[in-house]
Amino acid sequence: MLVVMKHGATDGQIEDVVRAIEDMGYRARLMPGAQRTTVGLVGNDGRVQESRLVGIEGVLRVIHVSQPYKQVSREWRADDTIIELSNGVRIGGKDVVVMAGPCSVESREQILETAHRVAEAGATVLRGGAFKPRTSPYSFQGLGEEGLQLLARAREETGLAIVTEALDTESMGLVAEYADIIQIGARNMQNYSLLRAAGRAGKPVLLKRGMAAMITELLLAAEYIVAEGESRVMLCERGIRSFGTHTRNLFDLAAVVTIHELSHLPVVADPSHGTGFRSKVGPMARAAVAAGADALILEVHPDPAKAASDGQQSLTPEQFDALMVELHPIAKAIGRGIARAPVPAHG
Amino acid sequence: MLVVMKHGATDGQIEDVVRAIEDMGYRARLMPGAQRTTVGLVGNDGRVQESRLVGIEGVLRVIHVSQPYKQVSREWRADDTIIELSNGVRIGGKDVVVMAGPCSVESREQILETAHRVAEAGATVLRGGAFKPRTSPYSFQGLGEEGLQLLARAREETGLAIVTEALDTESMGLVAEYADIIQIGARNMQNYSLLRAAGRAGKPVLLKRGMAAMITELLLAAEYIVAEGESRVMLCERGIRSFGTHTRNLFDLAAVVTIHELSHLPVVADPSHGTGFRSKVGPMARAAVAAGADALILEVHPDPAKAASDGQQSLTPEQFDALMVELHPIAKAIGRGIARAPVPAHG
Amino acid sequence: MLVVMKHGATDGQIEDVVRAIEDMGYRARLMPGAQRTTVGLVGNDGRVQESRLVGIEGVLRVIHVSQPYKQVSREWRADDTIIELSNGVRIGGKDVVVMAGPCSVESREQILETAHRVAEAGATVLRGGAFKPRTSPYSFQGLGEEGLQLLARAREETGLAIVTEALDTESMGLVAEYADIIQIGARNMQNYSLLRAAGRAGKPVLLKRGMAAMITELLLAAEYIVAEGESRVMLCERGIRSFGTHTRNLFDLAAVVTIHELSHLPVVADPSHGTGFRSKVGPMARAAVAAGADALILEVHPDPAKAASDGQQSLTPEQFDALMVELHPIAKAIGRGIARAPVPAHG
Amino acid sequence: MLVVMKHGATDGQIEDVVRAIEDMGYRARLMPGAQRTTVGLVGNDGRVQESRLVGIEGVLRVIHVSQPYKQVSREWRADDTIIELSNGVRIGGKDVVVMAGPCSVESREQILETAHRVAEAGATVLRGGAFKPRTSPYSFQGLGEEGLQLLARAREETGLAIVTEALDTESMGLVAEYADIIQIGARNMQNYSLLRAAGRAGKPVLLKRGMAAMITELLLAAEYIVAEGESRVMLCERGIRSFGTHTRNLFDLAAVVTIHELSHLPVVADPSHGTGFRSKVGPMARAAVAAGADALILEVHPDPAKAASDGQQSLTPEQFDALMVELHPIAKAIGRGIARAPVPAHG
Repeated sequence: MLVVMKHGATDGQIEDVVRAIEDMGYRARLMPGAQRTTVGLVGNDGRVQESRLVGIEGVLRVIHVSQPYKQVSREWRADDTIIELSNGVRIGGKDVVVMAGPCSVESREQILETAHRVAEAGATVLRGGAFKPRTSPYSFQGLGEEGLQLLARAREETGLAIVTEALDTESMGLVAEYADIIQIGARNMQNYSLLRAAGRAGKPVLLKRGMAAMITELLLAAEYIVAEGESRVMLCERGIRSFGTHTRNLFDLAAVVTIHELSHLPVVADPSHGTGFRSKVGPMARAAVAAGADALILEVHPDPAKAASDGQQSLTPEQFDALMVELHPIAKAIGRGIARAPVPAHG
Repeated sequence: MLVVMKHGATDGQIEDVVRAIEDMGYRARLMPGAQRTTVGLVGNDGRVQESRLVGIEGVLRVIHVSQPYKQVSREWRADDTIIELSNGVRIGGKDVVVMAGPCSVESREQILETAHRVAEAGATVLRGGAFKPRTSPYSFQGLGEEGLQLLARAREETGLAIVTEALDTESMGLVAEYADIIQIGARNMQNYSLLRAAGRAGKPVLLKRGMAAMITELLLAAEYIVAEGESRVMLCERGIRSFGTHTRNLFDLAAVVTIHELSHLPVVADPSHGTGFRSKVGPMARAAVAAGADALILEVHPDPAKAASDGQQSLTPEQFDALMVELHPIAKAIGRGIARAPVPAHG
Repeated sequence: MLVVMKHGATDGQIEDVVRAIEDMGYRARLMPGAQRTTVGLVGNDGRVQESRLVGIEGVLRVIHVSQPYKQVSREWRADDTIIELSNGVRIGGKDVVVMAGPCSVESREQILETAHRVAEAGATVLRGGAFKPRTSPYSFQGLGEEGLQLLARAREETGLAIVTEALDTESMGLVAEYADIIQIGARNMQNYSLLRAAGRAGKPVLLKRGMAAMITELLLAAEYIVAEGESRVMLCERGIRSFGTHTRNLFDLAAVVTIHELSHLPVVADPSHGTGFRSKVGPMARAAVAAGADALILEVHPDPAKAASDGQQSLTPEQFDALMVELHPIAKAIGRGIARAPVPAHG
Repeated sequence: MLVVMKHGATDGQIEDVVRAIEDMGYRARLMPGAQRTTVGLVGNDGRVQESRLVGIEGVLRVIHVSQPYKQVSREWRADDTIIELSNGVRIGGKDVVVMAGPCSVESREQILETAHRVAEAGATVLRGGAFKPRTSPYSFQGLGEEGLQLLARAREETGLAIVTEALDTESMGLVAEYADIIQIGARNMQNYSLLRAAGRAGKPVLLKRGMAAMITELLLAAEYIVAEGESRVMLCERGIRSFGTHTRNLFDLAAVVTIHELSHLPVVADPSHGTGFRSKVGPMARAAVAAGADALILEVHPDPAKAASDGQQSLTPEQFDALMVELHPIAKAIGRGIARAPVPAHG
């Protein structure tokens, strides 16, 4: 059970709620958020006298939530969450947002060329890793802050918003400074310190599903972020581990539908990691839109064969152009559109 | 390597090929089919003198196939296989075919009502099990031949072609007598005697992917059927086993793309078994069309709550109507249509 | 709920039970077995008046079973089932039985040499496939009846009992004629016609777990055999499909413990298929005994590099000798022994 | 290829190596560790002139490693790594080490009682979480530093070494101050910042396999730790995700054998998480020892029904006593023993 305090509830009012909960023999857990404080009632709440809590000054409402995740659930909020980015693009609304760019930021030329190309084709968000989680300690680990600066430069030139990954709490502040969306990678889905830091960083968060994560676990991971006060969270299906070898991961498109049923948060689909092979990215991008994904995140590289990482699953700019053309009628077929490119900041 | 004999090649000519293969130090394997005989050359065929084989009387061509599956591979045949059913519907061509009907044939009223409803909505093939593979020996096992007769009656009334499952070699003949497409279920994907019997039954075969089958294994299972001389095989993705609990199976849509890359056979998608929950069938059906599936097979029941099996994943006729309306623009978006209902045989 | 009729109950008495069940508003399902007939009461049996059923002439007992599987459950029978083979070896009792031999019977020399070697080392059952289920139709499919005859010859010379696979209902009679234990392979775990045929063949059955089978599904598959009247069924863990590549399958040893908790049937462990690599067979065989397996089934080949199938996971006779020496103290450590070789039939 | 510098090699010498590598057309990657610096040669190193590198001042040796993981591989070091703890217990040597204790440190009484009980039964390391990674943000997150202090008290009283989890880089220093072994949990196996921090913390590390981790990925994660200069790493199999529901995770015992083949690091088995159910812990602990695990880590709680976490899989002290008695003959059967309890520091 959750006791939601009004915006501006006083410390004294919150204390009254805590005391009432403890009087009834339960533990109270404070969940302060940027907007309002919520007091969770912990324990088997079947026999709680709601009336006692509703009557306390400063209480907005009392919510019984049947799921282990609370604030991210449809029970908590029936309407879809729509996240507006700095460039005006909205994720979770009527139009499908396309995020595109290289796996890693490799050089000034590479990222600027890609940014211009994907912007022209209709993408509205630029992806690109400055800090890369690599399976081997001896692999390329990203350009770091230089990469972030290059992303910012690309944003300036194209008007694209930036999504880039934060790998640890140490670099969270730096990433948040540059990014429009902070990405939490699949390997870190249950890195709870990182989730909490993301929830306090002041930027929308794109949370990727872990390789072996149940949907409930993904939602609980999102709950860690929201519990810190950041409600602008989007959830990303990027393929899970399975026995097959025809794809790098198993792209679980039904997860898109499931998350929409259980949560009000927008859902992003990543067919690049979801399949791992260029030839499968296009069909799966189309399928993701048809299944109802609110956004796509796609790897595009000007010269995939020379990519520092993930070349095998990166589209060429030409392939991306062609895919964008295919996506429009699919989106239209289900009553949506593809979100239009924002007006560039510079000319 | 495969040495394909001409239609009408004599036993003597075939023997010549076998002898030539053995002379070169390899083993020969005869693959007699209804149409033509193929002689497989077994062993590491890197140093075979092809010219010796090509020159033998009665030899049509010599094929080097790099995959373990041979006749079902794209290498063997570059063009898509198109399977024409008795009612004129073509699977594997430009238009997407919709197969629909109940999990099991339960009664005359149930199957006839469903058949008329799905035909009106635009389905062209009726599904329905007369022999049911059930996990428990104490569950309803199907109506048997009576079920087949009811399906035939439904075909007569609606013009729909019939797809129904054959469970064992004993009943294969009976099923083949009534069915337009013989279904081999997921549990039987590697029941090789059954595959061989299906390959000799004289009807197109719909082969479902096993719950833990690699794509290569699915293609090799299809090869068992084709090796018997039946080339009209379609492959069906129906979900695989995974750790998730939000769906009954994990619907592997990328398999549709993979099979199209590796094989010339048509691909059918089954979002009913692929997800296991009614609310997910529609979005996944749309996604399957967007991904390039040649046909859909969908469970529809006039009263799912009372279905003898699979009620949870069966659409109501009204939901099926609505889905058909959604599928048209998706198919159109990728340059295809939905195959139209054939003219009913009666009235 | 199950109403077990006495041996020799008359048709009239059975009819009385059926009528009583239908009078109470339930459906009755007859389960005739070789030994006795059981009448299943189908439906939610919470409010059944047991007394009405117990009082009917010819009824032995009424059993309420909470699991979907019935006769194979611990609820049905609390004591361990012990299966005695023709050579006097008992599976499921105090001592652990070792079955060993090649994957396929390849030649007279190969099978006789292997049989003598494994018998000398302490095995009491000889494994060897005469009919082989092969993923590719172009692979070696076994020697057929000749293979069965060679196995019989090996039994005659060594006193070993024979376990060999039946692939289809057509060859079931032939296999049952020669085998002491009929093996149903993993691919056929849900081939229900084959299970029923095995249940009527008159020989003990070794049922292998399917690659993606839940334990409940394995037990329900066994129920198909037992429902035909054959209670001498042993269940075999042989590895399931997973994402790992360090083993061919994932050997699920906890399944051994789970089956013992849920069922009274003996459990066999197959570390050869369970791991797929020779170097892992020994440690996993030791682990299986330590976990409580009632029997091991191991691939041993006189020259694994030349084996027609599964060479990579076959032990050499020398490795098998060494493993047998290791197994004795492990079995002793948990209060068991290794079942001793029976006295050879001939000299 | 790796160029290992001598302890105390100068910056100039390292630069000489880097220059030589770049002269040959390759990229050099510095891997500074606490003990020594290694220079990795990146790229296809098939045609490198080793002699040029070996001759440079300050170079200890040049190593060609065929695996993506380097310093943790058997190629790098053929002999087993043996890790000696502060209380004299050695992990990776002849004797099997038993680590036991509650999932979480809950109270002074709970941890001290458990510590005394497991020490008396023969455990030599005490497990217990002070910082708990919990799927839900609303679950009990551990006692924090108070928990660490209680663990230290238990060590003082019993002589047991302490293994406890570090959840983030922020608390790493604190954990390292108290712990004898720093545990990195399964959810953090690819939290690379945490791995690096663990590698610099100055204590042995127990690294748990992630829920969907390939063995190669586990070894590469260990490489992150070793690359920082900490060679005292042990790897822990604790079950992976699979489709089954009879256990919480799928305990992959063959991984123990695989890791021993590929790496010189000691292997720990965790049958508590590996199975998730108390009744399966004992048999799987026996199996793990039989399979060759160097250590076991077991959850023991004085009153499992009241445990704050993981009660279902915790043994009672009485069950632990009984298990320890069973483990001795299993260890003896494979030529090992159970590591003896150290002499308590106090009385």
